[in-house]
Amino acid sequence: MYNVLNLAKRRISIRNFLSEPIDLRDVLYALDAARNAPSGANKQPWRFIIITDNELKKKIRSYCEDAEKEFHSRAPEWMKSWLLEKGITWRKEFLTQAPVLIMVFGKTKEPYWVQSVWLAIGYLLLALEERGLASLTYTPPKVSWANKLLAVPTDYMLQVIIPVGRAKESKRSKERLGLEHIAYCNKWGHTYDLCLNGIDSYKR
Amino acid sequence: MYNVLNLAKRRISIRNFLSEPIDLRDVLYALDAARNAPSGANKQPWRFIIITDNELKKKIRSYCEDAEKEFHSRAPEWMKSWLLEKGITWRKEFLTQAPVLIMVFGKTKEPYWVQSVWLAIGYLLLALEERGLASLTYTPPKVSWANKLLAVPTDYMLQVIIPVGRAKESKRSKERLGLEHIAYCNKWGHTYDLCLNGIDSYKR
Repeated sequence: MYNVLNLAKRRISIRNFLSEPIDLRDVLYALDAARNAPSGANKQPWRFIIITDNELKKKIRSYCEDAEKEFHSRAPEWMKSWLLEKGITWRKEFLTQAPVLIMVFGKTKEPYWVQSVWLAIGYLLLALEERGLASLTYTPPKVSWANKLLAVPTDYMLQVIIPVGRAKESKRSKERLGLEHIAYCNKWGHTYDLCLNGIDSYKR
Repeated sequence: MYNVLNLAKRRISIRNFLSEPIDLRDVLYALDAARNAPSGANKQPWRFIIITDNELKKKIRSYCEDAEKEFHSRAPEWMKSWLLEKGITWRKEFLTQAPVLIMVFGKTKEPYWVQSVWLAIGYLLLALEERGLASLTYTPPKVSWANKLLAVPTDYMLQVIIPVGRAKESKRSKERLGLEHIAYCNKWGHTYDLCLNGIDSYKR
């Protein structure tokens, strides 16, 4: 059995997927978790379209790659370096390689809709990881094409595409700032240990 | 033991807290999960200030309630009704009642910083729930006061205050749209069952 911390540590963004099919009930399990997330005024401004159709995946990839070519040519220098270092190009093979894509839409008229949708995506990623499914949060540079392609009402906007499947690449270890760099006590820069006065230190 | 779906279903927003102290290691556990979330270009644009100081909590409450009074007077009618129905007023007693507040800041210059911070908040809430801690995502109508009060650099912005503690109110059941209303198959409005062809239906 896992706990949330284990899942959070184990889960890593994957860009290379095996094409083997997955059990869609695992995806539905994760969406079931996501729909239970809190949201601004409980408006639940999220909708998820599960993409399993191969022809549709090809079209989605084509729209995304067209937008990526433009984005890559205009990216700031630091991002170009980062993309190069990570081996990220305009090619988005994972959009046709992964057996399933989850297209996540947000209802743009609701209060805190972006915040609510992304909080739910946090739930979703952990639930997918629990079921042994690899994922990536891929945000295409342009999104309006998705409304037409999938008959989505205009008051919903594509927020992210999450390819889901089995990882083809081996999982690297994650680079993250230590807890001491991101958690403070009562004031910016004051180490969290100060809040632990008297009790044992936090063991990671 | 719990799984992610159980935690997601069990977790409910709590506005009334017991003032009894909590073990801060449980809060650090949850922040440890949050820091492992993915983020735009892995910039990890989140910072968390744990508030345990009672005088500081009073000040935070005061800043928030001043802003709330203004917000409530200007809220659209549908929201006024919703707030009234939920018993939510400008009073934010939970800000002094809860033993701990987590102030979450986002670095506004990073790519997808809002999205990244809120995804991490999803991780955080599930980890708190796992440790038996109640929480609320409270977004004050104004936030710039927080930088001065807590010596936070100007390129970080308060995104949410999360009071954490034991629930004083009994947990009500949650109102959420069913999975069939939020998850579609290959096209808006097409029931997810269509993606399950051949295999057992998804049992909730």
